[in-house]
Amino acid sequence: MTELNHKFTLAARPIGMPKRSDWNYVSEPVSDPADGELLVKILYLSLDPAMRGWMNEGKSYVPAIKIGEVMRALALGRVVRSKNPGFAVGDYVYGVLGAQEFAIRDGKGLNKVDPKLAPLPVYLGALGMPGMTAYFGLLDVGKAKAGETVVVSAAAGAVGMVVGQIAKIKGCRVVGIAGDEKKCQYLVKDLGFDSAIDYKAEDVRKSLRTHCPNGIDVYFDNVGGDILEAALANLARGARIVICGAISQYNATEAVKGPSNYMALLVCRASMTGMVVFDYADRYAGAAREMGGWLAAGKLKSREHIVEGFETFPDTLLKLFTGENTGKLILKVADDK
Amino acid sequence: MTELNHKFTLAARPIGMPKRSDWNYVSEPVSDPADGELLVKILYLSLDPAMRGWMNEGKSYVPAIKIGEVMRALALGRVVRSKNPGFAVGDYVYGVLGAQEFAIRDGKGLNKVDPKLAPLPVYLGALGMPGMTAYFGLLDVGKAKAGETVVVSAAAGAVGMVVGQIAKIKGCRVVGIAGDEKKCQYLVKDLGFDSAIDYKAEDVRKSLRTHCPNGIDVYFDNVGGDILEAALANLARGARIVICGAISQYNATEAVKGPSNYMALLVCRASMTGMVVFDYADRYAGAAREMGGWLAAGKLKSREHIVEGFETFPDTLLKLFTGENTGKLILKVADDK
Repeated sequence: MTELNHKFTLAARPIGMPKRSDWNYVSEPVSDPADGELLVKILYLSLDPAMRGWMNEGKSYVPAIKIGEVMRALALGRVVRSKNPGFAVGDYVYGVLGAQEFAIRDGKGLNKVDPKLAPLPVYLGALGMPGMTAYFGLLDVGKAKAGETVVVSAAAGAVGMVVGQIAKIKGCRVVGIAGDEKKCQYLVKDLGFDSAIDYKAEDVRKSLRTHCPNGIDVYFDNVGGDILEAALANLARGARIVICGAISQYNATEAVKGPSNYMALLVCRASMTGMVVFDYADRYAGAAREMGGWLAAGKLKSREHIVEGFETFPDTLLKLFTGENTGKLILKVADDK
Repeated sequence: MTELNHKFTLAARPIGMPKRSDWNYVSEPVSDPADGELLVKILYLSLDPAMRGWMNEGKSYVPAIKIGEVMRALALGRVVRSKNPGFAVGDYVYGVLGAQEFAIRDGKGLNKVDPKLAPLPVYLGALGMPGMTAYFGLLDVGKAKAGETVVVSAAAGAVGMVVGQIAKIKGCRVVGIAGDEKKCQYLVKDLGFDSAIDYKAEDVRKSLRTHCPNGIDVYFDNVGGDILEAALANLARGARIVICGAISQYNATEAVKGPSNYMALLVCRASMTGMVVFDYADRYAGAAREMGGWLAAGKLKSREHIVEGFETFPDTLLKLFTGENTGKLILKVADDK
């Protein structure tokens, strides 16, 4: 019996929120790796807000996914066949493997991970791209220092929760912005944030004024839109805004809303800087060691929101945009057996 | 016969473009300086886009002018009476003296200028706040380096023309954006800009693509609005945007337009940083020496647009917003006699 690979290929460029028909669900026989290649059985698929942007045409920091191509996705899997001396059957690897059940790769861009050091899903969260994004965004771009006030949006998301926890480790006051009371309680009670703002229930601009009486020193922005404006309205002098994402705008069908009060940058002598985590690839290993130490010491908590069933991919991805996940959203593709 | 001082005091906070009735034109006897004070006869009044912002209520980098107060303005004058040992009758001084013919001050914040080193109006232009703004904005905030492409808006204005010339001195390629063909020709032929874009006649986004084939490394923004968006659409990787002003928005009666494509900052790993020249006060002297050297060597040209007649102040100020001036707009208040 031929083993089958199922995959989601891009069928259409979404307008607004993606829908199931924007992908084709394709079956094909699993191929054999050629010399130098390896076959990976995907166990966990990483679902990230950036994936929405990759579906659009136009210039960005990576080329758009082409129509007909497998949906680009980070994933973690186990090597099941190998004709590449660098990888043995049984190795666990992490990289851009695509939204599919099996992937053939030449090994480039794949990182081995050790399931004895941390549970596999953590390598998609705190020890993966979201963790790296938080680490370099907060410390390198945001230059957060002890005693400063750090605000992070989408704070209960994969990046945001790590941003806040690293900021606490570094001695900052931390305010998280999230989408419901349960998430807010989780941030404060479980993760040690100093306070949290429920943007669906509160006037964020006013609440920021209350929670940040001396203004915001570092604002880590994952969302854009009104919350970015609320942060701009509450900056301390010399503030740094890290532009990591704009999840509130990714599905916009009308013109994206720019921050109308961007002149606060002048009033506050502040900066707004964009970052892409891939630029820090040569420093991932060092960051992972430091973050691994914090995890082991219980100073940093990882949390994953795992959904089962590969075929739910189109619907599960949308949870990112409706705010249903707390922690890193992951699709479990297969059991590790 | 009692000598009279005429002054413009703020009568109302303007809505949109300021009009004559937003000020009162007041006459009063010239007072005598008290001990420690000096009386300055104002010769030249500096007209700056920032003055429009000072008339608004709300938090900014300096307090708003209060209703009834003399209109805040930089000016240059001659000391005509002095009870302050630091200033002698005949000294020329530059500072925030207000929109009036005579000012009494205690000497704080006043700088003496030497009419033998440069004509007096130059101290309001290339050797004054506009020159300092250009110098620190381009070099400290923008970090322009030889070989880079620098774009400046309001390039035929007091700040812009100095930005472009310093960038040329530092070995950059320079593209200016200005409001008519004559200004554009002046930038290229007289000031040595590499090229210029007439924003009223051209599609700025397309023209920037043509003139900056490798993208913009430093964009010095004096105008905001559509031109800021056009620059964001043409950034090089690692670009720096200096937010110095937003003259296109100062008289807006509707909500200010934020840059809808600010996510270009992420795509290009770029930054956008606000600056206020007053922060560099302790370094003005050094910058003025360097700029004075460039002026003396003919590497830097100063140009002033001088209008006569103090009572024309409300109308002359508007030239800044209608783009009528080329070079530093100055109101001549009195002959130096």
